[in-house]
Amino acid sequence: MSKGVTPRSEDYARWYTDVVQKAELADYGPVKGTMVIRPYGYAIWELLQEAFDSRFKATGHVNAYFPLLIPKSFLAREAEHVEGFAKECAVVTHYRLRASSEGGLEVDPESKLEEELVVRPTSETIIWAMYKRWINSYRDLPILINQWANIVRWEMRTRLFLRTSEFLWQEGHTAHATEEEAREETLRILDLYQEVAEHEMALPVIASLKTEAEKFPGAVETWSIEALMGDGRALQAGTSHFLGQNFARAFDVTFRNEANEEEYVWATSWGVSTRLVGAIVMAHGDDKGLRLPPRIAPIQVVIVPIYTDESKTTVLEAARNLLTGIEQFRMDPSGTGVRVKLDDRETVTPGYKFNDWELKGVPLRIEIGPRDVAAGKAVVVRRDVDRKQTLTLETVPAVVPNLLEEIQASLFQQADEFRTLNTRQLEDWEEFKEFMAKGGFAVCGWDGDPGTEAAIKEQTKATIRSILHNEDPSGLTCIYTGKPARYKVVLARAY
Amino acid sequence: MSKGVTPRSEDYARWYTDVVQKAELADYGPVKGTMVIRPYGYAIWELLQEAFDSRFKATGHVNAYFPLLIPKSFLAREAEHVEGFAKECAVVTHYRLRASSEGGLEVDPESKLEEELVVRPTSETIIWAMYKRWINSYRDLPILINQWANIVRWEMRTRLFLRTSEFLWQEGHTAHATEEEAREETLRILDLYQEVAEHEMALPVIASLKTEAEKFPGAVETWSIEALMGDGRALQAGTSHFLGQNFARAFDVTFRNEANEEEYVWATSWGVSTRLVGAIVMAHGDDKGLRLPPRIAPIQVVIVPIYTDESKTTVLEAARNLLTGIEQFRMDPSGTGVRVKLDDRETVTPGYKFNDWELKGVPLRIEIGPRDVAAGKAVVVRRDVDRKQTLTLETVPAVVPNLLEEIQASLFQQADEFRTLNTRQLEDWEEFKEFMAKGGFAVCGWDGDPGTEAAIKEQTKATIRSILHNEDPSGLTCIYTGKPARYKVVLARAY
Repeated sequence: MSKGVTPRSEDYARWYTDVVQKAELADYGPVKGTMVIRPYGYAIWELLQEAFDSRFKATGHVNAYFPLLIPKSFLAREAEHVEGFAKECAVVTHYRLRASSEGGLEVDPESKLEEELVVRPTSETIIWAMYKRWINSYRDLPILINQWANIVRWEMRTRLFLRTSEFLWQEGHTAHATEEEAREETLRILDLYQEVAEHEMALPVIASLKTEAEKFPGAVETWSIEALMGDGRALQAGTSHFLGQNFARAFDVTFRNEANEEEYVWATSWGVSTRLVGAIVMAHGDDKGLRLPPRIAPIQVVIVPIYTDESKTTVLEAARNLLTGIEQFRMDPSGTGVRVKLDDRETVTPGYKFNDWELKGVPLRIEIGPRDVAAGKAVVVRRDVDRKQTLTLETVPAVVPNLLEEIQASLFQQADEFRTLNTRQLEDWEEFKEFMAKGGFAVCGWDGDPGTEAAIKEQTKATIRSILHNEDPSGLTCIYTGKPARYKVVLARAY
Repeated sequence: MSKGVTPRSEDYARWYTDVVQKAELADYGPVKGTMVIRPYGYAIWELLQEAFDSRFKATGHVNAYFPLLIPKSFLAREAEHVEGFAKECAVVTHYRLRASSEGGLEVDPESKLEEELVVRPTSETIIWAMYKRWINSYRDLPILINQWANIVRWEMRTRLFLRTSEFLWQEGHTAHATEEEAREETLRILDLYQEVAEHEMALPVIASLKTEAEKFPGAVETWSIEALMGDGRALQAGTSHFLGQNFARAFDVTFRNEANEEEYVWATSWGVSTRLVGAIVMAHGDDKGLRLPPRIAPIQVVIVPIYTDESKTTVLEAARNLLTGIEQFRMDPSGTGVRVKLDDRETVTPGYKFNDWELKGVPLRIEIGPRDVAAGKAVVVRRDVDRKQTLTLETVPAVVPNLLEEIQASLFQQADEFRTLNTRQLEDWEEFKEFMAKGGFAVCGWDGDPGTEAAIKEQTKATIRSILHNEDPSGLTCIYTGKPARYKVVLARAY
């Protein structure tokens, strides 16, 4: 099996798919549009889940689980939601198979459902149908529920992790007594998302507001974190929606406030998905494959022993001592021990192992051979930069956490520098078009007209990724119309 | 809102549903047959997941994720699987909705799928279709994959947690080079299931073999853990299947062994589900509601302060000191701090709180009022037995872990005694029928004839829950035919 990865510069899309498949993060499923998340990719997702889930819980959220199948009519209740939201849903129409005359299976026509069910494309509707039952008084609020679940939105053009018919995500759905509290929640989660992206995934993001055209249908405001990928395209990595009272009105969810008056409930929803695994590949990967930030690396350190028949016992013993030594240390004070693996496979060469763990993005590799053992040393190789160090065996374990911290910081810094290099303040339309053809973040003025936004997209495929709501647009002119800018915005071509 | 729970003796089924709903473990979903797992119920499930998942990983298993939607034809590949397995599946026939003329949504007839897809009722078929791609050589084996996922099997008669159209579970699917290794894996998991049931859930179980009639269609052998519920009915709480080469043959999955010969792969599959939450309710609950074993209790200790306006500050301060004191201790050396909650709600009375936490099965309640504070004491109340203790405030925190251990052990012992009291060695058919009408485990001889098994079921609704494969049947006669027994078995009416 060749591990050859298409060079990034040659064909970015193929490079991406090669890395995802050859590093065994994911594979295509048998049904068009579907994906299998393989153990190594799933282990990254589990670390991401833990990073988010612990923060959700620390901020008072609880997990729950709502049904997969939603009555078709629920989707039509919120006008904007049904109008703008993808109608590409998996539709369940029958509930039984029967043996066919040819020995196979066929759908039993007698099992036709009275009302078709939709496999959830998101859960606002079914959750608000339940909130109607649970919410009566201000005493029942807030409800701060999150759900980890699978989602289906039909896709024909698959890209592993980024666009598949089924994906995994978390979706928070909160209910509040006041607008202010719901708005605070929306931004609290946006901050939390930014924190996980930057601190755990080493992924610098812009956390800001979406335009009307780009917001979630049914939301009053959508906020997002936007990251820049290695090919200069943007990736929306998470969204947090202030829903106002839209879903409460659609599902008639009211509560009695402290003054005993009936009011509609205020709401938020927010989510991140397995798409983040794709973001990690695209933000940090290189021609050798993945480069994983240590905090979300399933294996943080791999030890590769190099030996002959005579030196095998000595080398393996030293390698095992290293293993147990390193396990005693931890990267974060509150975390578990360093995730270290000894690769003692007999069926492949050390050279094969080096390539394999480089492809899989393991942050630190430790090589140890007979001469190293004799000298009481080992060679420590970083994946983030081209740097080898020879260290004494005694010092290695205690140094590992520091090196992992350095790698974590260096990957963030590299991504941040890449973003700075590929961000341009632009005022000239021709320059803008040229820049967009290459890729990157353009910071521009926008007159606030949806027609302008549509025209820019039409002509350059670039969309407004974020409205920089904190920045003053005065003095700026709109990149397209030349009119005075109403907003300072970030534009890019996006995944 | 009344918290009244139907007495167990009056109507066991209603008692069960009352407890599940009023303790806010779960609620009915809007679609017939579906269930919403509420935060308190989900928190129990998360603790169960952690108990299983950590043990899976400690025994070399890894998690992965396979698609929800399975081509209909896959289900027909393994003859016994399709013949015996529930055909009550949710069938996806279309992939798009469109606006209807009446302003609602309708299925777009142009989006009809060429081949219908089935929402997974279990994942053997799709997983073995993938294993065919991944397995070539003995070097690729074993594969020890587990998946946490949702499952749909159409049900009309819902019972929350026990029988719903959708449920959550884990399903392990392993692939091995030899029969011996696969058989070992089957029993390793059976042991692991028993360990979690008994150690974490305080649920004594019989871990043994199923009959041909009761096994999983497609398996060579099915092993299960069987528990006795409070009404004398059995509950199958987990299954581990030795699949032989059946699925490998059906999906043509072969590997080259060390002698370079082509062989079919050996397989196991195994699962436990959210049904376990139902088992906990039914095995330990009483007329006041839930009684949760501490190891899987989301809240292990609740502190209820009792105060007047004058004493509020003093009492709350003492209560908060208790809270932080208790959090420093842990039940298991490797575990996290004791899960303790201070119930400082202002809107309800202490009496209401007592009932509420009893209903929710919190193992320990600590009551603290002004006179207690003055005396430097608190009252500690156990949920498992009717026992109150007054302890000094200084001693409480350190005593809590021991008390939780005692409660854990006492709930197991109560369930074990109940099982002993309701297990009968029977040789007489009339006695057997009478016993089965009341409920319990009957230990009997069976002649090994599936016809006998069917006749017993027909006449008493009892099924053979387990073949006691380690016990010698010689000397026993079949409970139904009077012929010499081939097996010693356990019979019961089951959920």
